[in-house]
Amino acid sequence: MTNSVPPLALEAELAFVPIGTLRTEAGADITDVTIAYQHWGTFRGDPHGANNIILVEHALTGDSDAADWWCEVIGPGKALDTNTWCVISTNVLGGCKGSTGPASTHPDGQPWGSRFPAISIRDQVAAEHAFLQELGIERVHAVIGGSMGGARTLEWTLMYPEAVSTACVIAVSARASGWQIGIQSAQISAIVRDVNWHGGDYYTTGTTPVDGLAAARRIAHLTYRGEQEIDERFGSQAQRGENPLGAFRRDDQRFAVNSYLEYQGLKLTQRFDAGSYVTLTEALNRHDIGRGRGGLIKALASSEVPTMVVGVDTDILYPYHQQEHLSRNLGNLLAMAKIVSPVGHDAFLTEARQMDRILRNFITLSTPDGLELGTAYIGDEYYI
Amino acid sequence: MTNSVPPLALEAELAFVPIGTLRTEAGADITDVTIAYQHWGTFRGDPHGANNIILVEHALTGDSDAADWWCEVIGPGKALDTNTWCVISTNVLGGCKGSTGPASTHPDGQPWGSRFPAISIRDQVAAEHAFLQELGIERVHAVIGGSMGGARTLEWTLMYPEAVSTACVIAVSARASGWQIGIQSAQISAIVRDVNWHGGDYYTTGTTPVDGLAAARRIAHLTYRGEQEIDERFGSQAQRGENPLGAFRRDDQRFAVNSYLEYQGLKLTQRFDAGSYVTLTEALNRHDIGRGRGGLIKALASSEVPTMVVGVDTDILYPYHQQEHLSRNLGNLLAMAKIVSPVGHDAFLTEARQMDRILRNFITLSTPDGLELGTAYIGDEYYI
Repeated sequence: MTNSVPPLALEAELAFVPIGTLRTEAGADITDVTIAYQHWGTFRGDPHGANNIILVEHALTGDSDAADWWCEVIGPGKALDTNTWCVISTNVLGGCKGSTGPASTHPDGQPWGSRFPAISIRDQVAAEHAFLQELGIERVHAVIGGSMGGARTLEWTLMYPEAVSTACVIAVSARASGWQIGIQSAQISAIVRDVNWHGGDYYTTGTTPVDGLAAARRIAHLTYRGEQEIDERFGSQAQRGENPLGAFRRDDQRFAVNSYLEYQGLKLTQRFDAGSYVTLTEALNRHDIGRGRGGLIKALASSEVPTMVVGVDTDILYPYHQQEHLSRNLGNLLAMAKIVSPVGHDAFLTEARQMDRILRNFITLSTPDGLELGTAYIGDEYYI
Repeated sequence: MTNSVPPLALEAELAFVPIGTLRTEAGADITDVTIAYQHWGTFRGDPHGANNIILVEHALTGDSDAADWWCEVIGPGKALDTNTWCVISTNVLGGCKGSTGPASTHPDGQPWGSRFPAISIRDQVAAEHAFLQELGIERVHAVIGGSMGGARTLEWTLMYPEAVSTACVIAVSARASGWQIGIQSAQISAIVRDVNWHGGDYYTTGTTPVDGLAAARRIAHLTYRGEQEIDERFGSQAQRGENPLGAFRRDDQRFAVNSYLEYQGLKLTQRFDAGSYVTLTEALNRHDIGRGRGGLIKALASSEVPTMVVGVDTDILYPYHQQEHLSRNLGNLLAMAKIVSPVGHDAFLTEARQMDRILRNFITLSTPDGLELGTAYIGDEYYI
């Protein structure tokens, strides 16, 4: 198999790989699982050894179109240079962008709905691992991801260290904190209290729990953005043409920030499935590197994959001390980087200049002696 | 009137003072307003001049029983020593603990419900000022309050500087920030989306929007408590006897933090009215010291009342930089103090030792030359 070329689809094209039945960590079977993916750049090297694959992991409501949502760092000449690297990104198990999730069709022809089991971050990684194996890929040069993508990246280094040469873990923690579980569960609660939720089996009712999903996003968005950034943008300004200071409170007379948050909620309902939102949020609640591995500290210490940790100084959802905790305890820390930004958690998506510098540094650190890939050689051009 | 004694009720007894019609800042009339209050200690001094009244302002879901909710700092021998000081606390306008609010009876015999207007922090202070005037009190030695009580305290110093000798403003900001409006409006939204809300007119329906109110409190509580404190207490532990890691997500199989948050929500629904919660949260949204005063900085600079500012280093709801902003800009800053605690916003209620020290210091600073009140003398015993 050495030096065989994985049968990748056309560049950028959304493609689907069946991986069969997946038994979840909690013991349920998901049959006929499909993983959707896209890739950019040409594969080089050995699919079982040194190669140029960078696996990019998306966040909660992201998708496999990493060259879109991370367009400032993925592409020709960019930090993750697709002239050099083969960037692969999958849609997560439980999602709604091509991979199997609650909105997908069960083998019996009906939607999975409430029959879709609870999944963990580990289940997501197991599915992605099975996907790579289906393509004949036994090893990747790097896994990179932020937020829920960072949780998957961290699990990759512990579940399949032999398959990962280096890792870059961004804006996440070693396990869900009590505060995170609390705020994430408040979001789940907003959805399941929507009368259109129907216990998760709304797909055939002609209605969807849009109000609940929008409410969830509204709460979530306030954890994705820094409080100073929100205030600098909106302060206590009225939405144009509306008067939030009238004699009676009215839902249609809003502060500008509420118009913004309602718009964020509405946008999400137009592109994302509530069932997937609940499933993936529940997976975040279950994120715990220490489970079954002797606890957090032992698990982190056991990590052998050279790992870079990145955080944001104003992150409300995954405060920077959580990345400091990772850095102090990871068995093979490659480097640590702090994004300084008023933007908060989302800064890894929005602070292009800083992410460019950080990811170029990661690439340099991850290829200290260059990377010989048959006729190709990757290395020098990355040294700063 | 000099040296007349205000007709206060019996110590600690909940009493009611009618103040007539109040026209709100936004131009609506609230007729037949009653303000409920309690007091502790004996009045001394001149109700129009130097006296020993300390007005204590409660937070969003608090009430006039300040000697209960702030029992560690109010009482004989405590920082706010009721052997020396006459501590008065009212229930806020719009509340549900004796003062007129949406659940109160309108003059027509029906509940106010949706007819109760939107009120501002200024309306709350105007009502409290009218209450004091009804008792013949034209001036108090100090106003002290935290959170929404801090907002009222700040407005006291700007609306009625002639009535306030000193002030202590705790864990609040000069105006609602965009983030605060966002998270507070998410709470209002949770209530008004409850099918039992009935546009605010649920009082005669036999049902109350308990689910919405509990959901609101669940969100709010995560802003009242520090994220590290929540994590240290609950982490990702399962609630005893429940398994939140089962094969399917179930609302009755919970993480411990969710049991805690649901309990906090339930407790609130048993003691607080949803209509008041919406009314008072909306008042917090409208909190803006700068409105009609040439903006925040001019308004703060115009303050003549010696004011102490207190904040909490881990406050999520009113981050410490907001108190630094107050301190930098207030026209007559008496002192600044930082509560250091993992507890977050609620630390001004829970960190008894630190609040004791801070309030004793405030009393000392507010009576630099002691306070001559006829036969009584207040001063030396407070010098540290």
